[in-house]
Amino acid sequence: MSTDIPDVSKISIGILGGTGDQGKGLARRFALAGHTVLIGSRSAERAQAAAESVGGSVRGADNPTVAAEADVVIVAIPWDGHRSTLESLRSELAGKIVVDCVNPLGFDKQGAYALAVEEGSAAQQAAAVLPDSRVVAAFHHVSAVLLMDPEVEEITLDVLVAGDDREATDTVQALAGRIPGMRGVYAGRLRNAHQVEALTANLISINRRYKAHAGLRVTDL
Amino acid sequence: MSTDIPDVSKISIGILGGTGDQGKGLARRFALAGHTVLIGSRSAERAQAAAESVGGSVRGADNPTVAAEADVVIVAIPWDGHRSTLESLRSELAGKIVVDCVNPLGFDKQGAYALAVEEGSAAQQAAAVLPDSRVVAAFHHVSAVLLMDPEVEEITLDVLVAGDDREATDTVQALAGRIPGMRGVYAGRLRNAHQVEALTANLISINRRYKAHAGLRVTDL
Repeated sequence: MSTDIPDVSKISIGILGGTGDQGKGLARRFALAGHTVLIGSRSAERAQAAAESVGGSVRGADNPTVAAEADVVIVAIPWDGHRSTLESLRSELAGKIVVDCVNPLGFDKQGAYALAVEEGSAAQQAAAVLPDSRVVAAFHHVSAVLLMDPEVEEITLDVLVAGDDREATDTVQALAGRIPGMRGVYAGRLRNAHQVEALTANLISINRRYKAHAGLRVTDL
Repeated sequence: MSTDIPDVSKISIGILGGTGDQGKGLARRFALAGHTVLIGSRSAERAQAAAESVGGSVRGADNPTVAAEADVVIVAIPWDGHRSTLESLRSELAGKIVVDCVNPLGFDKQGAYALAVEEGSAAQQAAAVLPDSRVVAAFHHVSAVLLMDPEVEEITLDVLVAGDDREATDTVQALAGRIPGMRGVYAGRLRNAHQVEALTANLISINRRYKAHAGLRVTDL
C-alpha cells in the first residue's frame, strides 16, 4: 500500500456531538496527536464541560461556532438528530470536509441491527443535506472505550474511508493515520458507505460473543 | 478468542455453483484440507469438467445430487439464479447446513455497488426459500484468485460467519478454520448478513485502488 500522504498536522478538527463517548474519544486522540480540537454541542456549556473532561488543549463551543471555526468537521451526533443538526449548519459547513462517523443502528433484545436510511446511509444523507460540503464517511468502527482508555497507547485498526472527492478522502485517511496504530484505507465511493456503517452492528455482536473491542484490519495492504 | 471447536474433519462439502471461480477455489482448498468435496452445477458434465480442473479427489455432479449427498452445502451460484436454484433444491437441502456466500452486487463504470434485496440479503433470501434448512452466511470476502493460486499456501483472513443457529455457525466457523490462515469469526445474526455481503463492493474498491487481494481481519480477538 503506497499513496502520497498529505500533511495534515496543522489541520484543526471540530467534533459535532463531541459530548458523546465516540466524540470525546476522538477529541482526546486528535489532541494527543497535536491537533487543535473543538468539541461542539447544542449547548456551549455542555461542550465546555466535555472539553474539560477530555483535558489538554481541547475547547468546547456551540455547534455553529465549531462548524465555522474548524478546518475539518467530524459528525458524531446521535442518528436521531443527524438530519436536523446538519441542516441547521449548512452555511457554516459549506466548502469544508465533513467526516460522518454516524452509525444508524437499532437495538433490541437480540442486539444491534442496521436501520434503513432513505438516502442509503448516514453519509449519503449528510451529502444530500450539505450539497456544498465535501462529505466523507470514516471512523465508524473505532471503539469509544479504547479511545478513552489512558492505558491504551495504540489502537490497531484500519479506518475505512469512503467518499467521492479524492482530495477529501486522502485528507481523512491521513488524519486517521495521526492516531497511533490506525491506518486510513480508501474503501470506495459514498454509495458504498451504508455497509461500512451497518457493519458496526456485526462488531457489536462480535464484542458481545468474544468479550472484545473489535476493529478491522484490511489484509494484503 | 476461545470457543469449543467442533470436529468437522469428516464433513463432506458440496458446492453449488462450483464451476465459478469462487466455488472452484473453495473446492480446491477444502479438498487440500482432506474433505470429500462435490462440485454441483445445473449440468453434470460441466460440474465434472470443473472437478477435473480442480483435481485431487474433487467430484462433480448435478446440483440435486450434490445437495442430497453432501453433509454441508455451500451456495456459490450467481445472484441472478439464487432464488430459483434454491427453490428447486428445497427437499434435498432440508435439515442441512446451507452456507450462503453469494454477494448481490451490481457493477457500472464507477465500480461495484450493493443491490437491494427484498429479503434484506442473499442469506435471508436463502432462509426464506429454505425454511427447513439451517442457513449460515460466510465466505463472502475470500479472494477467488488467492484460493486458486498454487503458490499461496496460507490465506490470512477472517471469515465472518452470520446465522441464527449456534451449532450451525460453530460448524461453519470450524470449517473456515480448516483452510490454512483462515479463522471463522461469529459476526452476528442472519439479519446482519446484508452488510457483510455488501462489504464485498468495498473490498473490490480497495483491490482496485491498492492493487491488492484484500480480506479482513478482526482485531482484539
